[in-house]
Amino acid sequence: MDSITLIAIISILTAGLTISIGVIGPALGEGKAVATALTSLAQQPDVAGTIARTLFVGLAIIESLAIYCFVVSMILIFANPFWDHVIAHGVGK
Amino acid sequence: MDSITLIAIISILTAGLTISIGVIGPALGEGKAVATALTSLAQQPDVAGTIARTLFVGLAIIESLAIYCFVVSMILIFANPFWDHVIAHGVGK
Amino acid sequence: MDSITLIAIISILTAGLTISIGVIGPALGEGKAVATALTSLAQQPDVAGTIARTLFVGLAIIESLAIYCFVVSMILIFANPFWDHVIAHGVGK
Amino acid sequence: MDSITLIAIISILTAGLTISIGVIGPALGEGKAVATALTSLAQQPDVAGTIARTLFVGLAIIESLAIYCFVVSMILIFANPFWDHVIAHGVGK
Amino acid sequence: MDSITLIAIISILTAGLTISIGVIGPALGEGKAVATALTSLAQQPDVAGTIARTLFVGLAIIESLAIYCFVVSMILIFANPFWDHVIAHGVGK
Amino acid sequence: MDSITLIAIISILTAGLTISIGVIGPALGEGKAVATALTSLAQQPDVAGTIARTLFVGLAIIESLAIYCFVVSMILIFANPFWDHVIAHGVGK
Amino acid sequence: MDSITLIAIISILTAGLTISIGVIGPALGEGKAVATALTSLAQQPDVAGTIARTLFVGLAIIESLAIYCFVVSMILIFANPFWDHVIAHGVGK
Amino acid sequence: MDSITLIAIISILTAGLTISIGVIGPALGEGKAVATALTSLAQQPDVAGTIARTLFVGLAIIESLAIYCFVVSMILIFANPFWDHVIAHGVGK
Amino acid sequence: MDSITLIAIISILTAGLTISIGVIGPALGEGKAVATALTSLAQQPDVAGTIARTLFVGLAIIESLAIYCFVVSMILIFANPFWDHVIAHGVGK
Amino acid sequence: MDSITLIAIISILTAGLTISIGVIGPALGEGKAVATALTSLAQQPDVAGTIARTLFVGLAIIESLAIYCFVVSMILIFANPFWDHVIAHGVGK
Amino acid sequence: MDSITLIAIISILTAGLTISIGVIGPALGEGKAVATALTSLAQQPDVAGTIARTLFVGLAIIESLAIYCFVVSMILIFANPFWDHVIAHGVGK
Amino acid sequence: MDSITLIAIISILTAGLTISIGVIGPALGEGKAVATALTSLAQQPDVAGTIARTLFVGLAIIESLAIYCFVVSMILIFANPFWDHVIAHGVGK
Amino acid sequence: MDSITLIAIISILTAGLTISIGVIGPALGEGKAVATALTSLAQQPDVAGTIARTLFVGLAIIESLAIYCFVVSMILIFANPFWDHVIAHGVGK
Amino acid sequence: MDSITLIAIISILTAGLTISIGVIGPALGEGKAVATALTSLAQQPDVAGTIARTLFVGLAIIESLAIYCFVVSMILIFANPFWDHVIAHGVGK
Repeated sequence: MDSITLIAIISILTAGLTISIGVIGPALGEGKAVATALTSLAQQPDVAGTIARTLFVGLAIIESLAIYCFVVSMILIFANPFWDHVIAHGVGK
Repeated sequence: MDSITLIAIISILTAGLTISIGVIGPALGEGKAVATALTSLAQQPDVAGTIARTLFVGLAIIESLAIYCFVVSMILIFANPFWDHVIAHGVGK
Repeated sequence: MDSITLIAIISILTAGLTISIGVIGPALGEGKAVATALTSLAQQPDVAGTIARTLFVGLAIIESLAIYCFVVSMILIFANPFWDHVIAHGVGK
Repeated sequence: MDSITLIAIISILTAGLTISIGVIGPALGEGKAVATALTSLAQQPDVAGTIARTLFVGLAIIESLAIYCFVVSMILIFANPFWDHVIAHGVGK
Repeated sequence: MDSITLIAIISILTAGLTISIGVIGPALGEGKAVATALTSLAQQPDVAGTIARTLFVGLAIIESLAIYCFVVSMILIFANPFWDHVIAHGVGK
Repeated sequence: MDSITLIAIISILTAGLTISIGVIGPALGEGKAVATALTSLAQQPDVAGTIARTLFVGLAIIESLAIYCFVVSMILIFANPFWDHVIAHGVGK
Repeated sequence: MDSITLIAIISILTAGLTISIGVIGPALGEGKAVATALTSLAQQPDVAGTIARTLFVGLAIIESLAIYCFVVSMILIFANPFWDHVIAHGVGK
Repeated sequence: MDSITLIAIISILTAGLTISIGVIGPALGEGKAVATALTSLAQQPDVAGTIARTLFVGLAIIESLAIYCFVVSMILIFANPFWDHVIAHGVGK
Repeated sequence: MDSITLIAIISILTAGLTISIGVIGPALGEGKAVATALTSLAQQPDVAGTIARTLFVGLAIIESLAIYCFVVSMILIFANPFWDHVIAHGVGK
Repeated sequence: MDSITLIAIISILTAGLTISIGVIGPALGEGKAVATALTSLAQQPDVAGTIARTLFVGLAIIESLAIYCFVVSMILIFANPFWDHVIAHGVGK
Repeated sequence: MDSITLIAIISILTAGLTISIGVIGPALGEGKAVATALTSLAQQPDVAGTIARTLFVGLAIIESLAIYCFVVSMILIFANPFWDHVIAHGVGK
Repeated sequence: MDSITLIAIISILTAGLTISIGVIGPALGEGKAVATALTSLAQQPDVAGTIARTLFVGLAIIESLAIYCFVVSMILIFANPFWDHVIAHGVGK
Repeated sequence: MDSITLIAIISILTAGLTISIGVIGPALGEGKAVATALTSLAQQPDVAGTIARTLFVGLAIIESLAIYCFVVSMILIFANPFWDHVIAHGVGK
Repeated sequence: MDSITLIAIISILTAGLTISIGVIGPALGEGKAVATALTSLAQQPDVAGTIARTLFVGLAIIESLAIYCFVVSMILIFANPFWDHVIAHGVGK
């Protein structure tokens, strides 16, 4: 196997694993946050505004963790510096 | 094995694993969110509107995590830049 | 092993794993949602309509996650672009 | 090993794993749903009809997940397009 | 190893794993359902009929999941199309 | 290794694993069912008959899952069609 | 390695694993059943007879699962048909 | 490696694993049973005799599961029929 | 494989795993923190300010853990000293 | 590697694993039993004698499980029949 | 592979794993601490100062654990004594 | 590799694993026992003596399990009969 | 690979794993301790001094466990006696 | 690889794993003990002395388990009898 093929294979595999493993935690965390928001809403409808605001800030922060993974995954597929290098220099062909 | 076969194999395997592992977290998170929404509805039918709105926003955010995985999976099958490259340049044939 | 055999093997294996791993999460999530709906119905029979509506929307969203996996699985078996390519071009035969 | 043997082996293995792994989630989900239905029935016998209806709809949706796996498993045993192809073309014999 | 031996080995292994892994979920699900039925019976002996009816329908549906696995396991041992093919055609002998 | 030895090895290994893995689920499920029956008996001694009847039906259904595994295990040891075939035809000797 | 050695090795390994893995489930199930019986006895000493009877029937059924494993384990050590066959026919010596 | 060494190695390894894995379940089950007995004693000192009797019967049954494993482990070390056979016949030396 | 290819492969794989494994803990921790904040808000709307302040400080500290992983991941992709060294010195080419 | 070395290696490895894995279950079981005894003592100091007696009998039975593992471990180190045999007969030297 | 490449590969892999595995524990621990602080604040707003002080001290101590991992990870990337040695002495080139 | 090196390697590895795996169970068990003792002390300070006595007996018994592992670990390092044998007889050198 | 490279690789890998695995337990333990301290503070603000003192002693003892791992990790990187030996004696070069 | 290198590698790896795996249990156990001490202090400040004394005795006993691991780890690094032997006798060089 030459270098280009190897780097392509690892990039594909890593990109897929990064995003699929990386969403497990945020999905569970967001599910817990949304669930608790609904419980709190049912207990205290009067502070629905504060609850919603806190929930959305929290979801945004947790979502950012999944975004990190998505960014790394996209970099590996579309802006992979190692791939660019071997394409440009034809190393190990 | 030549490059084209190898990249095809890895793309197929990764596409399947990405979506199948990637829906575990969102499915559990959404199940928890929906379940809590139903409990809250039974406790406070008066704020059904607020609960439903919050639930749908939350489900949309959690669903977005699964969408990330689906997008990566589709890219790997139908718009794989590494595949396009080896098809176009016939590298390592 | 030639390319066609290899891609066929990986497609079969991935198709099976994708759907079997992919239904674990949705099944648990839907089971939780249905279970909570029944508890809520027993507590508040008066809002059965709202509960049922919310439940069905939630189930549809969770089911969509399993559908993603089923779609990928079917694509790998019946509309696999990599398979079509090697059949058409006889690569690596 | 020739292509036909390899594809047969993988098809057998995948068919078995797909259905055996694929029923774990639905079985647990349905067990939870049935259990909650029985609890709800004991708490509110008056709405037995609504509970039973919701339960059966829920079980049908969860069962559909196992059906997906069973369908894929049957396709791999009795209508495997890759198997048909190698039988018809004698590839890699 | 010739084709017949290989397919026999994989069929034996898969048949055993399919049924042994496949009963874990249904067994736990049915145990939960039966346990809840007994709790409900103790709480509401008056609706014993409805509880028993719902329980048996639920057990039948969960049992069907194990039946799927048993059917696949039996097909692999006694009506394996791949085995029949290699016996009939002597492929790869 | 010749075919007869290989099939004997796999049959022994699979028979043992099938029954040992296959009893984990039923054992836990039955333990839960029996435990709940005893709790229910202590709460409602008046319906001991109904509880016992429901318990025994439930145990029978759960036990059937272990029986499936035991049957497959016995078939693999004493009525293995693949073994009979290689003994009769001396394939791959 | 000749056939006799291989079958002896696999039989020893499988016999040990079968009984050791196979008692995990029953041990936990019986522990749960005995524990609940003691709790029930403390709550309702008046129905000690019914509780003890139900407990012993339940333990017998759960113990039967471990017996299945013990039987398979003993068969593999002392009445192994595959071992008898290779000893009698000297296959693959 | 000759047959005698191989069978000795596997017997040693299996004997150790059988007893060490086999006591995990019974130890947890007995710990649970003893713990519940103590709780019950504190709640109902009046039926201490019945509780102790039930506890000892239960412990004996659970201990029997560990004894099965110990018996198999001892058979493998001191009365191994496969070992006796290879020592007597010098197979595969 | 030459040094450049090997270091590129390991860098890609490690970068992906680092961020995907590294967000699991923070996501669950933040989900728990946000959920508790919402519960507390519903119980004590009067101290919403203090709760929000404590929550944001806590989220920032937990987020810092994910940032560590993201930093290491970015260093491995864009500022990898080992990569720079082999590019500059052409070691092991 | 000669027979004596191989049997020595496996004996050392198995002896260590047997006792280390074998104490996990008893340690947890005894910890649970002691903990419950202390809770019961605090609830019913009047029956301290009965509790202590039951606790010590229970601990002895659970300890016996760890003793089984220790005995097997010591047999493997100091009274290993397989080791004695190879030392005495110089098999496979 | 020469020494420099090997040490570079292991350093990259270990640096990534160290920080990603190392933040799991602290993230969960800090999430628990922050969550409890919020619950306590809602219960006793009067001692908000003491709670916040204790929380920050605790978070600092838990964060120190992640810092240890980050320090080791940075040492391995930027101040690796083994790397410096092989660069300086050209060992095993 | 000669016999002496191999036995040294396995002894080192087993000694470390034995003590590290072997303290997990006792540590959790003792932690549970100490925790419950403290709870009981807070509930019934009057029987502090009985609680302390029972706790120390229990801790001693659980500690004995870890001592078994430590003894085996020390035997493997400082009084290893297999090591003494190969040193004395120079087997397989 | 020569001795120096091998020992460097293992030292790097072990140093990273030691600290990353070693902080999981202490982080969870400290998180639990801090969380309970905050709960206790909210319940009994009057004994804040005693609680803080006990907490800090406990945290110090738990932190010591992580320090052990950090010390071993630092010894392996900066004061490794095996590395010093091979550097000094040039063994196996 | 010569004997000295191999024993050095295994000693380094085992020393790291021993201490890192060995602190998980004690850390969790101590965290639980400290947490319960704080809860008890908040419930019964009057017996703070007895609680603290019992806690410190308990922590010392649990800490002793981690000390065992640390001792074995230090022996393997600084007083390894196998290492001393191969250095002194130059075995297998």
